[in-house]
Amino acid sequence: MNIKEYIELHKARFLDELFGLIRIPSVSAKTEHKQDMVRAAEYWKQLLIDAGADKAEVMPTAGNPVVYGEKIISENLPTVLVYGHYDVMPAEPFELWNTQPFEPVIKDDIIWARGADDDKGQAFMHAKAFEYMVKTNNLPCNVKFMIEGEEEVGSSSLEAYCSEHKEMLKSDIILVSDTGMIAQDIPSITSGLRGLSYMQVEVTGPKRDLHSGIFGGAVANPANVLAKMIGDLIDQNGHITIEGFYDDVQELSQAERQLMAKAPFNLENYKKALDIEQEQGEAGYSTTERTGIRPTLDVNGMWSGYTGEGTKTVLPSKAYAKISMRLVPNQDPEKIAALFDAHFKKYAPKSVRVTTEYLHGGNAYVSPTDSIAYLAADKAYTQTFGKKPIPVRSGGSIPIISTFERVLGAKTILMGFGLESDAIHSPNENFPLFNFFKGIETIPYFYKYFAEMKK
Amino acid sequence: MNIKEYIELHKARFLDELFGLIRIPSVSAKTEHKQDMVRAAEYWKQLLIDAGADKAEVMPTAGNPVVYGEKIISENLPTVLVYGHYDVMPAEPFELWNTQPFEPVIKDDIIWARGADDDKGQAFMHAKAFEYMVKTNNLPCNVKFMIEGEEEVGSSSLEAYCSEHKEMLKSDIILVSDTGMIAQDIPSITSGLRGLSYMQVEVTGPKRDLHSGIFGGAVANPANVLAKMIGDLIDQNGHITIEGFYDDVQELSQAERQLMAKAPFNLENYKKALDIEQEQGEAGYSTTERTGIRPTLDVNGMWSGYTGEGTKTVLPSKAYAKISMRLVPNQDPEKIAALFDAHFKKYAPKSVRVTTEYLHGGNAYVSPTDSIAYLAADKAYTQTFGKKPIPVRSGGSIPIISTFERVLGAKTILMGFGLESDAIHSPNENFPLFNFFKGIETIPYFYKYFAEMKK
Repeated sequence: MNIKEYIELHKARFLDELFGLIRIPSVSAKTEHKQDMVRAAEYWKQLLIDAGADKAEVMPTAGNPVVYGEKIISENLPTVLVYGHYDVMPAEPFELWNTQPFEPVIKDDIIWARGADDDKGQAFMHAKAFEYMVKTNNLPCNVKFMIEGEEEVGSSSLEAYCSEHKEMLKSDIILVSDTGMIAQDIPSITSGLRGLSYMQVEVTGPKRDLHSGIFGGAVANPANVLAKMIGDLIDQNGHITIEGFYDDVQELSQAERQLMAKAPFNLENYKKALDIEQEQGEAGYSTTERTGIRPTLDVNGMWSGYTGEGTKTVLPSKAYAKISMRLVPNQDPEKIAALFDAHFKKYAPKSVRVTTEYLHGGNAYVSPTDSIAYLAADKAYTQTFGKKPIPVRSGGSIPIISTFERVLGAKTILMGFGLESDAIHSPNENFPLFNFFKGIETIPYFYKYFAEMKK
Repeated sequence: MNIKEYIELHKARFLDELFGLIRIPSVSAKTEHKQDMVRAAEYWKQLLIDAGADKAEVMPTAGNPVVYGEKIISENLPTVLVYGHYDVMPAEPFELWNTQPFEPVIKDDIIWARGADDDKGQAFMHAKAFEYMVKTNNLPCNVKFMIEGEEEVGSSSLEAYCSEHKEMLKSDIILVSDTGMIAQDIPSITSGLRGLSYMQVEVTGPKRDLHSGIFGGAVANPANVLAKMIGDLIDQNGHITIEGFYDDVQELSQAERQLMAKAPFNLENYKKALDIEQEQGEAGYSTTERTGIRPTLDVNGMWSGYTGEGTKTVLPSKAYAKISMRLVPNQDPEKIAALFDAHFKKYAPKSVRVTTEYLHGGNAYVSPTDSIAYLAADKAYTQTFGKKPIPVRSGGSIPIISTFERVLGAKTILMGFGLESDAIHSPNENFPLFNFFKGIETIPYFYKYFAEMKK
């Protein structure tokens, strides 16, 4: 039986099983979901055992547990380590969802739910591709699974876990589906990821909230001060003003940039899809370059004072912001965090106090496009999509990927099947059934070609 | 029986009655408290009847009801119209309160509760001063009460109410206790109030929240844009940059500023009380001038993106701010609102859409210090505090005061008994028993001297 036939036969069960996973609200950012993390991990353990793993277990870490599973055929065969995560982003703001975020719904041939793509849907494809290969005796190599529960909060326990279980996790390639592709008819392979340095800033003015009439104009307002400091972080050319921020950035050559520019991209469609009149970014770079090869800075959240209905004439005591910077190869997240902190300390007026906190981060990653893994992935996509995939530098980050290379000594191949319209991290996250089933279909070919070329 | 004896005899009951009023959470900013507004109005009606009013009623308006009461002795006597409000500010952030905001507690001879001062405590003093004068036959003139329920949200129904009941509300002076005094041993009379123009700004970027990695750097982030626009509203000299903002400001003469500078003010104590290292404000003006005679701009609230625990790598679709401007005499709140809107529209980048909303406002007010009412108040304070009160320009706003003059044709005298440390509009609002009882004691003398001088 080929993979297409296997999918056709089992698709209803596949969706049932995925929906069971999605219904567990495993939001790693919130401590109230601690028990849901364990439930999601146990669910994955069972998925792997049912799919044909020799063994699978839920392994404790300092944070949320890691699910490990394996099927070892022979020491003489290559080994693929599948990495994914069972945790999801918070679903707020709830009021913008058209459906319940943790109750998956299929509408217009699309699965709608938090985690439908990132990364419950995409990681699940690997469990089913694995199941197919085991049940039909098509598995050409050893397989290991490592599914973690802290990816959306910086994978803080995973480096220690990898160091501790280096031997167990040994592999020839790490295979990950946690990225996207250009379009349903334009397959692509992510050849680069940005790094991340995620900060929180707290500005304190007077020790208590004040009446904005009686004190306004004479006492520094931390909300005004923080707004000004955020505003000054990026200049009119879109450059980040933090001293030393660009010091370690490696510029791409004109030839590399020209190659990048060949990837299909339609700015008008892009703007239309986002309902914006004009794009915005660093001067001298295209939209694709701005997200692919340039570091950036974004406010992810800010809050201060009275945010309820109506009015309150308050001069708030405190103002906060969550600010993250996407980094490019060679930039160090902790060094950037220190520069960020120094900048805020240096430019804060004496009338307020400022503290910053480094919440999490990770290095950028670039994948070589001439490796066996890349070539195997290229052949797999070509087989199932009928056209050659395009290498793309993604703006997103999977900070743990560079850690894998350092700690486990293995490269990663990023076979992402998501679309930009999947709204990951946003309300109404979704994953088209086409992409879901195409992923399950493509993955076994990767194993096939990778094992063949490795011989 | 003199007023001091009367207070001594009835103080426990006074506090009981005040606490009953405070326990009604009449927060006008929140529609969920609609019924509490009616309960607080009914409570005031009963207070006035019990105190000796000939009649009192809860009168409907387009918004929250107004309590009207009166005792008319003779058409030949002057009439005092007491104005106050039964609504209070929201109590958020609740976690910063040491006690329950709507369960008053007396500790260290201070009443702790939302509304203890503003304006349940202060308005209540008038009910009890009135009660004393009626019960002991010391009332020297006619009295009217008008207690509204929308002062903290801009008194939006009161102008229409006043227009409609002009004859009923006719008076020789409007008497208000909704301001402060310099210190317990430094009585003062508020001779000026700032106006207010309270705006809400909404900035929209992409039509949905985006993944900050995949889109960050290429799509305008409305939180960054709003922060920048807020930051640019005030320049490095503390000047507001909105075009035309200062056009109608009347500068004070050097002589007037020198007179103001004579009011006692200790900058070191001020900074210590607020726990700030340095004050901040418009260049060329003292702290007292910055709040007393200069217009200012403060963020009262701002919010965007993810503000919960942990991290979320989101590029938010929307960012909001509540921004209010305090105005000085001759500045028109609606004109200022229009200038604010024009400024935001002009300077917003094309990559976002901006809308502003005028939430409420009012004109500044200056009270003459040579009027009969001022002289009567001066004598009353001198009688009970043993020293002459100082005229002070307050930074706060009671927007309706200028409306009274325009619609009812009556001046207002502001006999405030609050202290800066009362933390009105803040967590742990409080009102010292000393000030509460001193207010009740002083008010009857105002009636006495005012009636005498009016003869």
